[in-house]
Amino acid sequence: MTLAPSTVEGPLNGTIIIDLTRVLAGPYCTMVLSDLGARVIKVEVPERGDDARQIGPWMDDQSAYFMSLNRGKESIALDLKSPADRDIFDRLLQNADVLIENYRAGTLERLGYSWKALHESHPRLIYAAVSGFGQTGPYASRPAYDMVVQGMGGIVSLTGQPDSPPTRVGSSVGDITAGLFATIGICAALKEREHSGVGRMIDVGMLDCQVAILENAIARYIATGDVPGPLGARHPTITPFDAFATADGHMIIAAGNDSLFKRLCDAIGRPELVDDERFLSNPNRTAHVDELKREIESTLGTRVTNDWLPKLEEAGVPCGPINNVQDVVEDPHVRARNMIVDVAGANGFSVAGNPIKYSDISDPPERGAVPALDSGRVDILKELGVDPYTS
Amino acid sequence: MTLAPSTVEGPLNGTIIIDLTRVLAGPYCTMVLSDLGARVIKVEVPERGDDARQIGPWMDDQSAYFMSLNRGKESIALDLKSPADRDIFDRLLQNADVLIENYRAGTLERLGYSWKALHESHPRLIYAAVSGFGQTGPYASRPAYDMVVQGMGGIVSLTGQPDSPPTRVGSSVGDITAGLFATIGICAALKEREHSGVGRMIDVGMLDCQVAILENAIARYIATGDVPGPLGARHPTITPFDAFATADGHMIIAAGNDSLFKRLCDAIGRPELVDDERFLSNPNRTAHVDELKREIESTLGTRVTNDWLPKLEEAGVPCGPINNVQDVVEDPHVRARNMIVDVAGANGFSVAGNPIKYSDISDPPERGAVPALDSGRVDILKELGVDPYTS
Repeated sequence: MTLAPSTVEGPLNGTIIIDLTRVLAGPYCTMVLSDLGARVIKVEVPERGDDARQIGPWMDDQSAYFMSLNRGKESIALDLKSPADRDIFDRLLQNADVLIENYRAGTLERLGYSWKALHESHPRLIYAAVSGFGQTGPYASRPAYDMVVQGMGGIVSLTGQPDSPPTRVGSSVGDITAGLFATIGICAALKEREHSGVGRMIDVGMLDCQVAILENAIARYIATGDVPGPLGARHPTITPFDAFATADGHMIIAAGNDSLFKRLCDAIGRPELVDDERFLSNPNRTAHVDELKREIESTLGTRVTNDWLPKLEEAGVPCGPINNVQDVVEDPHVRARNMIVDVAGANGFSVAGNPIKYSDISDPPERGAVPALDSGRVDILKELGVDPYTS
Repeated sequence: MTLAPSTVEGPLNGTIIIDLTRVLAGPYCTMVLSDLGARVIKVEVPERGDDARQIGPWMDDQSAYFMSLNRGKESIALDLKSPADRDIFDRLLQNADVLIENYRAGTLERLGYSWKALHESHPRLIYAAVSGFGQTGPYASRPAYDMVVQGMGGIVSLTGQPDSPPTRVGSSVGDITAGLFATIGICAALKEREHSGVGRMIDVGMLDCQVAILENAIARYIATGDVPGPLGARHPTITPFDAFATADGHMIIAAGNDSLFKRLCDAIGRPELVDDERFLSNPNRTAHVDELKREIESTLGTRVTNDWLPKLEEAGVPCGPINNVQDVVEDPHVRARNMIVDVAGANGFSVAGNPIKYSDISDPPERGAVPALDSGRVDILKELGVDPYTS
């Protein structure tokens, strides 16, 4: 017997994921995989389940946090220390393409499921381990949370105002980027297995992923020896590229070259700035970044953001508002791109959609229901040929 | 004739990518693909090449910014308006698995390479278009930069101190997350094509990706109606989970539950805080977050960060330093994980490594050279059976 494919259309339809992950990095990965058509069977600890079920905010006594990450998955509760449940787990693995967990390094091995053992008994199985620091190296056994790896990985040192206290990125990019890199690793291994027939282990550490997204900061340090610090909203080497105060708030302007700078100056009625020696080239503008900001804001401050945006858009200057979460959820473009989707059976609760849009694959405005703990047990056991009423 | 595979080991070895992308989001995607074993042929505009070649910092007259994103790729300069170069481009496509571009929506179509036309002439070709706002919706034709989509997508509204001016994330997560989602889309389409035999178009918009990483902020807004704002370094609902001042700087402490809170209080010699009514449970601690921070900092301020870290680590409390980029590059764990790698022929220049570690695939400490503009022309044309000296 094999497990049936997901009812969700997508390039991974037919792929079966056994998902031991909790909280954020791993569940984010399996959410993306399920949006791509994989069937995700979430194996949770009995009674308590995924820790995220206890994290607010709450909606009708359910964790909205858990709901936002686990829509469209199925749940079965298994105690991996009980022989009967281990038997069910082994049957799941026999029918699975991918096993993923985000325990601390070594935890699954202590339960008897080392990569060596898994690979011997299920040579086609792909096994992804997502952890704070990866499976090797001096910090491998340490616990980690998003905030710890954001601090250790350098992004906090680059984020904030020049003299502000430490500032974290306002979403958990420590977890989320690890989830994304793990998803890439799994999809590439699935592709390879189509011809090799053999699975691989994938080891993704959150701290590694923070290093991988430092972008030009590493290049700046290696090339110049200067240690980059936080710069508020501005770009380190391109000017004007910042948030600017208007009469009623701020807006973003990203005029990255001479031609865009000229368009900007014309559009706000300050053509004389183009010929000002201090602002003649991007290096000049960057050297006089504060003076240029004062000049631009002295004009932008005379009108509200919604007056300026259409003017600059018409002039072809990259610009935009600073939206809060309500603005984002209500934005007509975000809606037109189907980036806010409903959750089946969740009474109007909605979540972020899938940003990967494929030709000839539907992008439904509603996603699958959020599973109650162990709610998939009977159906999954039947599919596995196990009598659900005796096991 | 077919194009030879990359010399880099990996699950995508044998995959050929034709890469029209410039600057960051697209080149980041093809860098990850090349780290996974794909061969990436970068098609650049003649004379100027990728705009990133003009962006600092500089190292030996080369853009370190360009180097950090394009190591291990090949370059050929083609003018897609010239018939001879279009012929070469068509031959590349005939031998390719993936075409990727990050023009503004509609640009490649105007050059005669719409998805419809590409799919008719190369039915197996996968085509990924990465753009600011995606190929559809009211903003599709607008220009975008990282900073614009960070502002529009809500992450700026969540990042910063409560009363600070707008603060961007200190690395270009607008570009980078789009690059990661595009990589996922490509890998999943490659996997699907192994059995379907047919390619797909993938449409990734940077703004969509920003919505996709807002995490619990959307759930908080939908579930409660409250619009979340920036919180410095602290977690909105878990306490203590923040950056705390020590005698010589700050450190991160993430004591997310009662047991970790008790360990923290014991480790810093403040056991009485555990029984303080204000701090008895996580909701209580969150309600008195400022008072708890003052209590903790009154003790942490008596010693330096490097005194506290081993104490808390030993007690099993998740914690860490706030590293700057130099600390990160020199960190023994980051080094042990091979997350800082050299670039061939680049005179000591190093870049971030690949955070996706596979069993039985080497993770070399040196990556391929950075291509000079058009430096791959002769070899690529020979492989395509075109005489490089007459074309």
